[in-house]
Amino acid sequence: MTLVGDHSTGVPMRAEVEARDAADPLAHLRDRFHVPEGLIYLAGNSLGPAPLAVFDDMETALRQEWADGLVGSWNEAGWFALADRLGDRIGALIGAEAGQTVACDTTSVNVYKALHAGLSLRPGRTTIVAESGSFPTDLYVAEGVVAGRPDVTLLLEGVDGATLEELIGERTAVVLVNHVDYRTGALRDMAALTRRVHEAGAVVVWDLCHSAGILPVALDASNADLAVGCTYKYLNCGPGSPAFIYAAHRHHETLRQPLSGWWGHAAPFAFELGYRPDAGARRLLCGTQPILSMRALNAGLAAIEDVDMAEIRAKSLALTDLFMDLVREPCAAHGAEIVTPQAAAERGSQVSITHPDGYAIIQALIARGIVGDFRAPNLMRFGMAPAYLSYHDIHVAATALVEVLESESWRDPRFAARRAVT
Amino acid sequence: MTLVGDHSTGVPMRAEVEARDAADPLAHLRDRFHVPEGLIYLAGNSLGPAPLAVFDDMETALRQEWADGLVGSWNEAGWFALADRLGDRIGALIGAEAGQTVACDTTSVNVYKALHAGLSLRPGRTTIVAESGSFPTDLYVAEGVVAGRPDVTLLLEGVDGATLEELIGERTAVVLVNHVDYRTGALRDMAALTRRVHEAGAVVVWDLCHSAGILPVALDASNADLAVGCTYKYLNCGPGSPAFIYAAHRHHETLRQPLSGWWGHAAPFAFELGYRPDAGARRLLCGTQPILSMRALNAGLAAIEDVDMAEIRAKSLALTDLFMDLVREPCAAHGAEIVTPQAAAERGSQVSITHPDGYAIIQALIARGIVGDFRAPNLMRFGMAPAYLSYHDIHVAATALVEVLESESWRDPRFAARRAVT
Repeated sequence: MTLVGDHSTGVPMRAEVEARDAADPLAHLRDRFHVPEGLIYLAGNSLGPAPLAVFDDMETALRQEWADGLVGSWNEAGWFALADRLGDRIGALIGAEAGQTVACDTTSVNVYKALHAGLSLRPGRTTIVAESGSFPTDLYVAEGVVAGRPDVTLLLEGVDGATLEELIGERTAVVLVNHVDYRTGALRDMAALTRRVHEAGAVVVWDLCHSAGILPVALDASNADLAVGCTYKYLNCGPGSPAFIYAAHRHHETLRQPLSGWWGHAAPFAFELGYRPDAGARRLLCGTQPILSMRALNAGLAAIEDVDMAEIRAKSLALTDLFMDLVREPCAAHGAEIVTPQAAAERGSQVSITHPDGYAIIQALIARGIVGDFRAPNLMRFGMAPAYLSYHDIHVAATALVEVLESESWRDPRFAARRAVT
Repeated sequence: MTLVGDHSTGVPMRAEVEARDAADPLAHLRDRFHVPEGLIYLAGNSLGPAPLAVFDDMETALRQEWADGLVGSWNEAGWFALADRLGDRIGALIGAEAGQTVACDTTSVNVYKALHAGLSLRPGRTTIVAESGSFPTDLYVAEGVVAGRPDVTLLLEGVDGATLEELIGERTAVVLVNHVDYRTGALRDMAALTRRVHEAGAVVVWDLCHSAGILPVALDASNADLAVGCTYKYLNCGPGSPAFIYAAHRHHETLRQPLSGWWGHAAPFAFELGYRPDAGARRLLCGTQPILSMRALNAGLAAIEDVDMAEIRAKSLALTDLFMDLVREPCAAHGAEIVTPQAAAERGSQVSITHPDGYAIIQALIARGIVGDFRAPNLMRFGMAPAYLSYHDIHVAATALVEVLESESWRDPRFAARRAVT
């Protein structure tokens, strides 16, 4: 196969790419994942692949813990403590000291808790500020929160003001913001924005769905207040795997959230009549967690937690740079535009490209074994996960994209039909 | 082994019990479950045993769907539709026509949605009525709801009035009630109470945690409004398996619930800016569901859904009668009291017995392979699941309880230590 770049100047050549793979300190991580033969998987920003260790873990969870251990496994297999133990391990990957993060529920439910917790920390303040370009569920949930709080208004960047900063003021209670934009891959400066929010006397809720596990996140060092995120993207913990929620130690005693179920009680098995929140991060829990899905988190976290996140970030930037370098000119020549910021400090780990026929182009790539994804109306997303992608993979994927664009093979009618869910 | 009853009069004899097993039309169901060798499992009212089909299902979910199918499985493996499809199957077991039940989240989170939905259906009304003897999480969540609704008060049976009926009046918006009491096993008359609630102009939320899958539930026929329940007890769907929530068709258009996440949106993949609830029961959904845990529901439901619920109920009553007949006199003679109602129409499928040393007695029984459970301060619970228990099992279990009581073998110090979680 002739790869793009081989006959050009200024873009990497096959030999250069192979040399990078040979020198890659993370190359061995690929053996920890199941990536189907013949597939180059660039949709890990949507659903990460299965870590190999998950098969044995689930066998243990099913046969030893549930089938044989039965109800005793709540103690003996440590099921009840999974929310904290896994939470602390997620915390270690996002710059949170132990005791501040719990694994539970869904990102949407955790956004709901976090927004209410934020409001409880800033009584008397009357606005929640968010991004109109947020992943929609954050906004839908924020709508649900303000619908129950007639004293609170939801203000949106891009609707009520051009920038978040313009909307943050003395009335702001909570700023809900995505660390990495799910569409463009743009990365916010967590420390700077958190400082800005605090200067206004508000608290911030960081949505880490597209940054947890793929770049260094420094919640504690940034003095963040609250955070939520999912574990099924770059943390590779399984489809719809339980999410997480973080609250800084300093807020634990004060914060309240209305999903006050028994798992958040200070003494859940005392069966007291009244709710009394746990002193720590467990007050962010609500009901009994889905243990089989929770048990899959171990393998996902174990697959990357012994790696320096700075190394993952370095390779992530190198992979995204390589891809952008290879496709930039052909994209421009064929009506496609890279919308991911070019500066390393301003982007996460995906390359997003718009094209009016993006849906068909993604289908044409999938037919060639290159799996990216599409978001309406015109966005193609290519997630770059250093744990299971090589420079060669990226070279092949970029070549395929260029060929699909140049040959217009996406015009084949079989690539036109839209599926219900993408 | 000499079994109780063999040398008495008025209680069943070994031969009679064996004859019942030989004639049991549900005896074959036991082959659908993994019950560890040597165990008589009477804690299915807490966590049901593993249906054998779950092992293959989970292998498929892990290897074919996640590992090989990757992100495409949201469509191709039908993951996105699981909430409705499994919900409809649960609905069929609780007397609900299709399109009214979704499988999702936890019972606690669903209680939160249901109470808010109930309030939205009765604007201007100012009380929620519940039972002080409710499983505590229902009350904790109700507290969370009223904390955010200064116009609404939570009234408790047993605290603010002796009976629910006394508390239901023209101010009542929602009555939250357990179909079967988790402590005593007492069963409410669903049709009668629903009628009473409707006469007062209120709506009712039924908590079916201890009745779904074990006795005929007639939500539609009772004209119920809302219901919630778990799937990990008598539905045998796995530890912490996703719960369910039901809303009667007639309420779909009107009801609102604040956990308005993207899965409840009318067009979740259109990524619209504003929340627009789905026209049907999906408006009760919130975020992305834990698929591995969801996938375990199929086997649990399949294991009983081809059986007439009336047959399950008949055997359940026979098993509980047998157990109570065998232990009643010895219990009375040794300071233990059966607190489960004797009348068939007034109880679910557990036998609950109080004893000051109930904890140690349960431990002594577990040491003999008889697994019941204990709830503070003095309650022993024995759940009777017809799908995997024989009359002989119950005879053996009753004999063991009688022997432990008569010999006071529970005084052995190794049975005294309390575990953190029971």
